[in-house]
Amino acid sequence: MKYKMLNLVVVTRTLGVLLLLYSIAIIPPLLISVGYQDGEWPYWLIIWMESVLLGWVMWWPLRRKALDLRRRDGFVIVTLFWFVLGLISAVPFLFMPQLDFSDAVFEAISAFTTTGATVIVGLDLLPPSILFWRQELQWLGGIGMIVTAVAILPTLGIGGMQLYQAEMPGPFKGEKLTPRIAQTARAFWIIYGGMTVVCALAYWLAGMSLFDAVAHSFSTVSTGGFSTHDDNFAYFNSPLIEFIACLFMLLGGMNFSVHYLAIYRGSFDQYWRNEEVRTFLIMVVILITITSTTLFFSTTYADPITALRYAAFQAISVVTNTGFGTATFANWALFLPLLLISFSFVGGCAGSTAGGIKVIRFLLLIKQARREIYRLVPPHIVRSLKFDRRVIPEEVTSAIWGFFSLYILLFVTLVLLLMANGLDQVTAFGAAATCLNNLGPGLGEVAASFTGVSDGTKWLLSFTMIVGRLEVFTAFVLLSRIFWRG
Amino acid sequence: MKYKMLNLVVVTRTLGVLLLLYSIAIIPPLLISVGYQDGEWPYWLIIWMESVLLGWVMWWPLRRKALDLRRRDGFVIVTLFWFVLGLISAVPFLFMPQLDFSDAVFEAISAFTTTGATVIVGLDLLPPSILFWRQELQWLGGIGMIVTAVAILPTLGIGGMQLYQAEMPGPFKGEKLTPRIAQTARAFWIIYGGMTVVCALAYWLAGMSLFDAVAHSFSTVSTGGFSTHDDNFAYFNSPLIEFIACLFMLLGGMNFSVHYLAIYRGSFDQYWRNEEVRTFLIMVVILITITSTTLFFSTTYADPITALRYAAFQAISVVTNTGFGTATFANWALFLPLLLISFSFVGGCAGSTAGGIKVIRFLLLIKQARREIYRLVPPHIVRSLKFDRRVIPEEVTSAIWGFFSLYILLFVTLVLLLMANGLDQVTAFGAAATCLNNLGPGLGEVAASFTGVSDGTKWLLSFTMIVGRLEVFTAFVLLSRIFWRG
Ligand SMILES: [K+]
Ligand SMILES: [K+]
Repeated sequence: MKYKMLNLVVVTRTLGVLLLLYSIAIIPPLLISVGYQDGEWPYWLIIWMESVLLGWVMWWPLRRKALDLRRRDGFVIVTLFWFVLGLISAVPFLFMPQLDFSDAVFEAISAFTTTGATVIVGLDLLPPSILFWRQELQWLGGIGMIVTAVAILPTLGIGGMQLYQAEMPGPFKGEKLTPRIAQTARAFWIIYGGMTVVCALAYWLAGMSLFDAVAHSFSTVSTGGFSTHDDNFAYFNSPLIEFIACLFMLLGGMNFSVHYLAIYRGSFDQYWRNEEVRTFLIMVVILITITSTTLFFSTTYADPITALRYAAFQAISVVTNTGFGTATFANWALFLPLLLISFSFVGGCAGSTAGGIKVIRFLLLIKQARREIYRLVPPHIVRSLKFDRRVIPEEVTSAIWGFFSLYILLFVTLVLLLMANGLDQVTAFGAAATCLNNLGPGLGEVAASFTGVSDGTKWLLSFTMIVGRLEVFTAFVLLSRIFWRG
Repeated sequence: MKYKMLNLVVVTRTLGVLLLLYSIAIIPPLLISVGYQDGEWPYWLIIWMESVLLGWVMWWPLRRKALDLRRRDGFVIVTLFWFVLGLISAVPFLFMPQLDFSDAVFEAISAFTTTGATVIVGLDLLPPSILFWRQELQWLGGIGMIVTAVAILPTLGIGGMQLYQAEMPGPFKGEKLTPRIAQTARAFWIIYGGMTVVCALAYWLAGMSLFDAVAHSFSTVSTGGFSTHDDNFAYFNSPLIEFIACLFMLLGGMNFSVHYLAIYRGSFDQYWRNEEVRTFLIMVVILITITSTTLFFSTTYADPITALRYAAFQAISVVTNTGFGTATFANWALFLPLLLISFSFVGGCAGSTAGGIKVIRFLLLIKQARREIYRLVPPHIVRSLKFDRRVIPEEVTSAIWGFFSLYILLFVTLVLLLMANGLDQVTAFGAAATCLNNLGPGLGEVAASFTGVSDGTKWLLSFTMIVGRLEVFTAFVLLSRIFWRG
């Protein structure tokens, strides 16, 4: 362990600043607690003071050290960011009588990683400030992920995402790490915030209560998937609300750099011109077609319009790794449960709030595989690999193969570990997939909630959700000996 | 479709020769039918005459054309070899009243690809000549696979196996395709035949009937897995017989080039010095340890020795993709069924009779993934990849990543197709894995036999077994447009 004191200083100070910023997030539930008189305000006050104090202690003494973040510290900070804030966010849930420590951590990490798998049954009866906190956490995690994915992971080179380094929106390109992260965060914060406001307004006009509208806008644009009702979106039973949800889930699942470009240049062409977004939309259409056709012909829904309605909502919910439900797809006919869970491995676009392997990596993986086939056939012409009309360097293709292989090997290991903990094969498969891909609903026993699983399983899955959020490789790098030796 | 007439001539002629050779294989069951007086001899005579006639018609008119096999023809011939001989081998089963056309094809292809998944219940009552034919088919498929894997696939460059081109035993290196295949086939035929004789003798001395000893030696060295009894190896209930089976399954799962070297140089060091064989043996020991410990602590078997006995047999049976059973592992506790099925994806060594992805590819995959992690960590030293003290070229690593990705994507697609045909998730998973990896027993409904699945599913799985045997890529190459265009 030769990780230098110098770096520890930077890491501590950065986390201190993040903690101070985070403490601001506790003010809304505090105000809501007072406004709705749900009696939770003393807890919120304590938690707020604690995070301010802790953040201050970590930042103040070290504030004058003139040190810049380096690439290597990025791995440590980004990992601690998700672990530490995830754990701290569990504190409010600890005050709920029905949740023990493991439950509280699972719920908080599930929200913060925008997974949206819950251990709470009886959501409709919870204090409003707690409900609000669950939703707000997803929203914070969503913007955290966008900044991580657009500004940090490409710099670290995780899973071939150095590809995106060249594609950063104009003004940010090529700057040093700290100012770039700050600038990116500011620009995307505005897009993300604006999207949330529009989404909340739309929900409200479509008939949700103001509280529900805001709460669900948080979990829609962040592709989180939590609801304030046990019945999730089935509670509203409104095609209009479902349509709004679909639209904003899709927006949340797209690369925010593309949103930025579309706004910056004032042209919607950007979406279709971007090869990843285009593939993503085509994939969604194909999945909706297969799902609705199968639902109709397996007579799950009697008329084609209803089949299409449920299929479209669920397909978009799963592909963007949101996990909202108007139906329990785990109970659908034939291959549909597995098909939908499989598509959650693809997930949304890189640089979005979605989880999974990401569309761009899948697209490149398929192009790479096709190239390997061509290589075998005389006259053995090996064409260079292109994405968005740019040639992909060999380093990126290797990184993507490596990413995919590790992802699959980790997934299989997880399923085995979960079965060792006593889950059956279908449940273990669903739980591992839904947590690693930050989706939410699983299969079998965990189709609706994770209430029934053991404490050990909850901890393993909480860990999995963070590893998924860190795009797997970040975690592996930190676990490698060479990282600490260097 | 520009595949030239010239090539069609070579392909037809080669298949004709193979068919003539194959007709010799029908003589043993014909003799057995006469000897045991099971009344099947007229069928065998008809089948024998048919194959001689068909082979002769394909070979004789074209025998004088002076054409050599080219690399591109290899793809066509190797694919047709498995399809055509697989289908022809089904004819004897057509005469069995309890089997329809789909059953007969499934059984024959399952035997010929050394998968060993059966649709027959009531083996103990079958005519001896039919029983013998099932076993002999596996034996023929086994040597077919060794020759394919050692002499043909490396030349085609499937999944990075050009690696082995340099490693061919001394006398065969660098020669033209046709004489090399012939020489390799001859040398390996002797090793394979000798191994079979020793195995049969050992079984006989350990207490099997002569018929059973020969029959099971066929399905052991070929890692086929068929038995002449419904209870498979549980029928004998003899630790000694199980030990012999374990030994010869392991030998069958090793690279036959290494056997050749060990005999050629008269040193057993070759086994341990070969990195793939070493990894394979270590893997087997680990799997036995995990399995026996779990069996003991989950109280499936009360005493540790019994747990070890069953664990060792089943672990070796699964890792070598043989599929023999002394117990139905699909019913074992916790994660064991999935663990064993997962290991069948690794399979035995390249250049053996085993199926799956192969140890060497897994080993390189893990080395490659580790290198990708190292690449991310400062100071970003990228060491060259080594196997058996030789540097692996970048072309091979790409091919192996591509192989793994296509294998997994194909597997997921298969599971979805099987579920579309009405199988439940666990059964579909087990059936796809066991057929793609040429293992034999599955999970769920297909744990013991494939009698219960629909005709469509049987055809799909028959196709899968051949695709697995062709190491997936061969099939993809043939399906690519560029192959036929070039
Ligand atoms: K989610
Ligand atoms: K087998």
